[in-house]
Amino acid sequence: MAPSGTKRGILERLSVGEVVIGDGGFVFALEKRGYVKAGPWTPEAAAEHPEAVRQLHREFLRAGSNVMQTFTFYASDDKLENRGNKLSFTGQQINEAACDLAREVANEGDALVAGGVSQTPSYLSCKSEGEVKNILRKQLDVFIKKNVDFLIAEYFEHVEEAEWAVQVLKGTGKPVAASLCIGPEGDMHGVTPGDCAVRLIKAGADIVGVNCHFDPMTCVKTVAMMKAAVEKAGLKAHYMVQPLAYHTPDCSCQGFIDLPEFPFGLEPRILTRWDMQQYAREAYKVGIRFIGGCCGFEPYHIRAVAEELAPERGLLPEASQKHGLWGSGLEMHTKPWVRARARRDYWEKLKPASGRPLCPSMSAPDGWGVTKGHAELMQQKEATTQEQLRPLFEKADTKY
Amino acid sequence: MAPSGTKRGILERLSVGEVVIGDGGFVFALEKRGYVKAGPWTPEAAAEHPEAVRQLHREFLRAGSNVMQTFTFYASDDKLENRGNKLSFTGQQINEAACDLAREVANEGDALVAGGVSQTPSYLSCKSEGEVKNILRKQLDVFIKKNVDFLIAEYFEHVEEAEWAVQVLKGTGKPVAASLCIGPEGDMHGVTPGDCAVRLIKAGADIVGVNCHFDPMTCVKTVAMMKAAVEKAGLKAHYMVQPLAYHTPDCSCQGFIDLPEFPFGLEPRILTRWDMQQYAREAYKVGIRFIGGCCGFEPYHIRAVAEELAPERGLLPEASQKHGLWGSGLEMHTKPWVRARARRDYWEKLKPASGRPLCPSMSAPDGWGVTKGHAELMQQKEATTQEQLRPLFEKADTKY
Amino acid sequence: MAPSGTKRGILERLSVGEVVIGDGGFVFALEKRGYVKAGPWTPEAAAEHPEAVRQLHREFLRAGSNVMQTFTFYASDDKLENRGNKLSFTGQQINEAACDLAREVANEGDALVAGGVSQTPSYLSCKSEGEVKNILRKQLDVFIKKNVDFLIAEYFEHVEEAEWAVQVLKGTGKPVAASLCIGPEGDMHGVTPGDCAVRLIKAGADIVGVNCHFDPMTCVKTVAMMKAAVEKAGLKAHYMVQPLAYHTPDCSCQGFIDLPEFPFGLEPRILTRWDMQQYAREAYKVGIRFIGGCCGFEPYHIRAVAEELAPERGLLPEASQKHGLWGSGLEMHTKPWVRARARRDYWEKLKPASGRPLCPSMSAPDGWGVTKGHAELMQQKEATTQEQLRPLFEKADTKY
Amino acid sequence: MAPSGTKRGILERLSVGEVVIGDGGFVFALEKRGYVKAGPWTPEAAAEHPEAVRQLHREFLRAGSNVMQTFTFYASDDKLENRGNKLSFTGQQINEAACDLAREVANEGDALVAGGVSQTPSYLSCKSEGEVKNILRKQLDVFIKKNVDFLIAEYFEHVEEAEWAVQVLKGTGKPVAASLCIGPEGDMHGVTPGDCAVRLIKAGADIVGVNCHFDPMTCVKTVAMMKAAVEKAGLKAHYMVQPLAYHTPDCSCQGFIDLPEFPFGLEPRILTRWDMQQYAREAYKVGIRFIGGCCGFEPYHIRAVAEELAPERGLLPEASQKHGLWGSGLEMHTKPWVRARARRDYWEKLKPASGRPLCPSMSAPDGWGVTKGHAELMQQKEATTQEQLRPLFEKADTKY
Repeated sequence: MAPSGTKRGILERLSVGEVVIGDGGFVFALEKRGYVKAGPWTPEAAAEHPEAVRQLHREFLRAGSNVMQTFTFYASDDKLENRGNKLSFTGQQINEAACDLAREVANEGDALVAGGVSQTPSYLSCKSEGEVKNILRKQLDVFIKKNVDFLIAEYFEHVEEAEWAVQVLKGTGKPVAASLCIGPEGDMHGVTPGDCAVRLIKAGADIVGVNCHFDPMTCVKTVAMMKAAVEKAGLKAHYMVQPLAYHTPDCSCQGFIDLPEFPFGLEPRILTRWDMQQYAREAYKVGIRFIGGCCGFEPYHIRAVAEELAPERGLLPEASQKHGLWGSGLEMHTKPWVRARARRDYWEKLKPASGRPLCPSMSAPDGWGVTKGHAELMQQKEATTQEQLRPLFEKADTKY
Repeated sequence: MAPSGTKRGILERLSVGEVVIGDGGFVFALEKRGYVKAGPWTPEAAAEHPEAVRQLHREFLRAGSNVMQTFTFYASDDKLENRGNKLSFTGQQINEAACDLAREVANEGDALVAGGVSQTPSYLSCKSEGEVKNILRKQLDVFIKKNVDFLIAEYFEHVEEAEWAVQVLKGTGKPVAASLCIGPEGDMHGVTPGDCAVRLIKAGADIVGVNCHFDPMTCVKTVAMMKAAVEKAGLKAHYMVQPLAYHTPDCSCQGFIDLPEFPFGLEPRILTRWDMQQYAREAYKVGIRFIGGCCGFEPYHIRAVAEELAPERGLLPEASQKHGLWGSGLEMHTKPWVRARARRDYWEKLKPASGRPLCPSMSAPDGWGVTKGHAELMQQKEATTQEQLRPLFEKADTKY
Repeated sequence: MAPSGTKRGILERLSVGEVVIGDGGFVFALEKRGYVKAGPWTPEAAAEHPEAVRQLHREFLRAGSNVMQTFTFYASDDKLENRGNKLSFTGQQINEAACDLAREVANEGDALVAGGVSQTPSYLSCKSEGEVKNILRKQLDVFIKKNVDFLIAEYFEHVEEAEWAVQVLKGTGKPVAASLCIGPEGDMHGVTPGDCAVRLIKAGADIVGVNCHFDPMTCVKTVAMMKAAVEKAGLKAHYMVQPLAYHTPDCSCQGFIDLPEFPFGLEPRILTRWDMQQYAREAYKVGIRFIGGCCGFEPYHIRAVAEELAPERGLLPEASQKHGLWGSGLEMHTKPWVRARARRDYWEKLKPASGRPLCPSMSAPDGWGVTKGHAELMQQKEATTQEQLRPLFEKADTKY
Repeated sequence: MAPSGTKRGILERLSVGEVVIGDGGFVFALEKRGYVKAGPWTPEAAAEHPEAVRQLHREFLRAGSNVMQTFTFYASDDKLENRGNKLSFTGQQINEAACDLAREVANEGDALVAGGVSQTPSYLSCKSEGEVKNILRKQLDVFIKKNVDFLIAEYFEHVEEAEWAVQVLKGTGKPVAASLCIGPEGDMHGVTPGDCAVRLIKAGADIVGVNCHFDPMTCVKTVAMMKAAVEKAGLKAHYMVQPLAYHTPDCSCQGFIDLPEFPFGLEPRILTRWDMQQYAREAYKVGIRFIGGCCGFEPYHIRAVAEELAPERGLLPEASQKHGLWGSGLEMHTKPWVRARARRDYWEKLKPASGRPLCPSMSAPDGWGVTKGHAELMQQKEATTQEQLRPLFEKADTKY
């Protein structure tokens, strides 16, 4: 793995107001491609099927990403072994393979490598600060050995655990980004986005923001709340946003996990490329400069972000060679009524139909209201038994 | 490229009632990944970015596909050069590269290679039977040289052109499948599905069916109409179906091309994996044995087909190692209310919300009613000019 | 009750191509007002609460109706006593009161009185032609005594019973209209609309058409099918249409009775006044001249029909004094953004939202497929018992 | 007009926790019946067509209403003459006729007469406190002369004007109810519901609450906010709620006036009777005891409120003789699959379809953000001219 340092670092870029485009979420994209299992959502594919992970990195790079996040989501040892998950690779093997793949593709273009850690089952199971930090340190050892360019602590539902993570990451001397999976209602214990951001910066984060759990506009709104509170507190930071590619107008504080459609019926909610252009513009307007995606993003979604911000970035991504801006590629279509759609106002005004006349437009989210400390949230190494599932099924069925 | 013949052929399989699973559509999948341009929809990626095409073949193979279709859709010379499309590869280079990739991946598993031809701009532009057949023969020369296992003439809107194609393909001695992109209303000149099928069989097709343009249930219904007519005519054939992965309840005879959402706003219509299992079961029930997909299909859609028909096929695809049947992988999820979804009846009953409360559930399709012979359908080598586009824009805007 | 004859008769009007505007359905309107019971749907209010029935007649008259139908729907003796229905008035009392009310209000304007009979439980219960005709004759005796202007046999699901009714009515010498509650799929035994119309005319009907069960556009389409068949058969007739005021795109042959929302959840389907103007125009275009309404119609719906056809009729109804055409009354609104809606194109283009984001846009109709002759359709004087209901509940619940 | 006083008064009833059921809105109901003009929305029908107003009073009485509100909405002199509205009756004549009708019907049952005043164009046009109070006093003189049982100041958007009204009404010695047309966001100047309620009580109101502009659940939520603030302030009051019968999940602070569907496309939003039962239960639960309705309510909606609260009230309304509770009347239906709907759980679970597959489920409200003081809100005696309308049309059309 080549050393980093030959490129301008993340903070150098953000400090001069440059737009940094993130990548999209790997677990959902690779689940659709057949390499990640929904449920455990662990990233063993980095070691098991490197060609698939490499190809996805490459597609995001072509689409305009400046950051290759190591595919190390949920790669902490306690998560890899949770609830009967069986893997033929160790956490260290997976984390190392993921670093090598990210570096290999980053070197093919203008991208940095970010080592990523995420929330742990240990925290949910009420383990101590020391235990949680030890878990995170094991992943970090690999990131240091592989010399990633910066670090991201992402997908934390509780700001307390995120603070612990930032404290651990900060010890490395690398730039640290901290990203919660929260919305405007704040973290799972009700801490507001503004207070979360202030605490994370005080813990040492250089970049703060949110990822996953909510749709782009909701995430931008949440980061705007963070920014306002940070500025009010007289602090300084950079901001990042990496939302879902799913519309979630009906979500409450737990985000899309609560939706009845999660995770196997989310298709009707997928954003179009035009939705993404709106998102990129809005994120830019509120002052966010690290703009990427999470679950549901496909390479064309990232390309749409890059195309919208092409004037600011001064360049189009490589993959735009295969995309006419605002539908102009349709000028080459054989049918005249499709050529009639080769224009911006057509796509900006379109209200796409669902094609599902027997389905509603919104869902009633689950909202069980259980969070850290509740018995149902304790994790275990053993597979979930039918005896454990039965009361959950019954609870779910009496919702109405 | 390895010779074929070491595996049981397509007709051998179908004759004993075996289920043959097709792959999904490459142009839409690779457009999302950044390698195909919407509008021209040409397959130069086979030569330009073989790693991306190879990876997609591999994902479909892992998902259960028994057929690797050469990525040669719209690779006829007249289409490659239509309306200002500029390519750095010749038609021959593209067709050859596509054959090599399909064979390479087919050899990694139990799959056959099918060389594919599709409708031509020449036919739309009212060229003669001889000219159209010559265009098709050029692709065929490559398929023979590369020794594909069988041939598919697919995506024909007019049965007449499909007959010409079958006649040309039949000359090679290879098994021939003929697939129209029509629905229950029949071809663009109003020939019923039943009459189309009878004519194609009489022209020499061994397998008949439909692909693209309509959703799975509509396509199955159309093939069932074909089958009834074929049997009534005292003929024999095998049947295939390769539908869209988009719900199209609102389409008329031209299919999804007429939908206002085509091609950049179709996301809300994407089928879930559970929709696909229903489709696979229904297709099997009406007697179709070659069951695959077209535009919109991702590898997990094909996997759903393979999982539904696992009892009949006696095996699960490789990618099912990363998928718990009917949501059982969710038993490993950290959240109890998501574990409560680890069961078949939950997913079978779910009516997924669109997350788009400002959007309707159905669209009013364009329905310009122009077909072969209409001036607006004449194709040209030159790029479409703004002067040519303006009247189309106006026509579209006066729809209401 | 004043004698008729001082006004031009129904056939005189229709013969010169005049538009005759019907009224709306009384059972649904009076159910909302608290005078009719959903389930039995019987018209005892004519005797029990004449002020309420008189007021509704008057509102339709003011809205433009030229026909006051006696509120004698389901007023045959066998229906008044069906399934435990308890009434303090005899069929004769109800029928007489209804005639008097219709005449009283008709005399206040340019309206005719139409005596109406409808399908009988006796037919459903497989009684003989003689028995059914006797039932109908009892109502007819009242109509003759009260000297109504013409007769309507309406809401028949089986053309055979409608023929019997026409034969009975024809004996009076009064003009006879025959209206089935069927859609494009034809009557409950599959007789096409065209064949139904031909048979009714041959039985003696002067006017044929459809009422109830389907939305306006579907009813117009059905009558157009009738008209085409009648003309093809070389016959002559006048045409009438009195549809629901509910959108029913999801209905099959039994119409809105099959919809899960029938009869207590139909609100979201109610047509706007602008929908009604479209309906009136379309009905006029296909050559229908007796244009009214049925269940769901409120006086403002009839007014919309009259306003749309004001150019043809040469007058606006009295109630238009309280209605600005195409929203122009909004010029007097206090809020400027509502004044901005005082124009036709605003209302013509509006796609009204349901305000129900958790509800779908279409339903899956029941479609039990039982019709005359099936045991479940036999009627009885006794109240339905819980023992009789239980198997029905179970059958309904296993629909999925 | 008979004197009041023979019945227990409004405060007597509320003080012992009795449920008092209000009536529904007259302007919308009578607009549908052809007696009120949308736009000016003035109540001249009381003098012009007393039979229609009397009948509607009677239907609400039969449905369970304990309060007959005089049909004097917008009957202040400045509103009767606003923007070119031409009437053949004076304000005094209308107000007197309305009192007589309300008393006549109230005497037919257990109902009180409430004299109602509402917000004035004078306030919107920035007239002084003295001028506004003088306008209100003119209506009040009639109410005193006719000896109504209590007074309601309702449909005020600005708490300041409502305070003025309460001060004027309080001078009469009659019980005073004050009802704003606001939602959870508060009045048009941003005063919270809680602060509004406290101010109204301090001004002299005995009963506070909200009416119109929002759907039932939103109104109940708003009154609950009022109640919490009133109790926190150590004050005491009774609470009332009279919401729309339209679902308005998409409204912001101005309520349904902002919806693109207002007022001629609201049909799909009409609540079912089952929605109303939920509303009545919820209102009761939060401690509201004066429970009625406003625009969109038909008599059957009020009956549903009375039926839901029958256990608390100890009686069913007269109109329930024509309604089987929870659908039980369907036991008498001729069709077996409709008899299968004669049960509570069927109707409670039903998610009624809109029957409008081309329409969305929610709208984007106008939200012009103009309120008292903005030039566009100044009222005038003269009719709105085309010159005045043009800029409004343009402003509306550039919304997107």
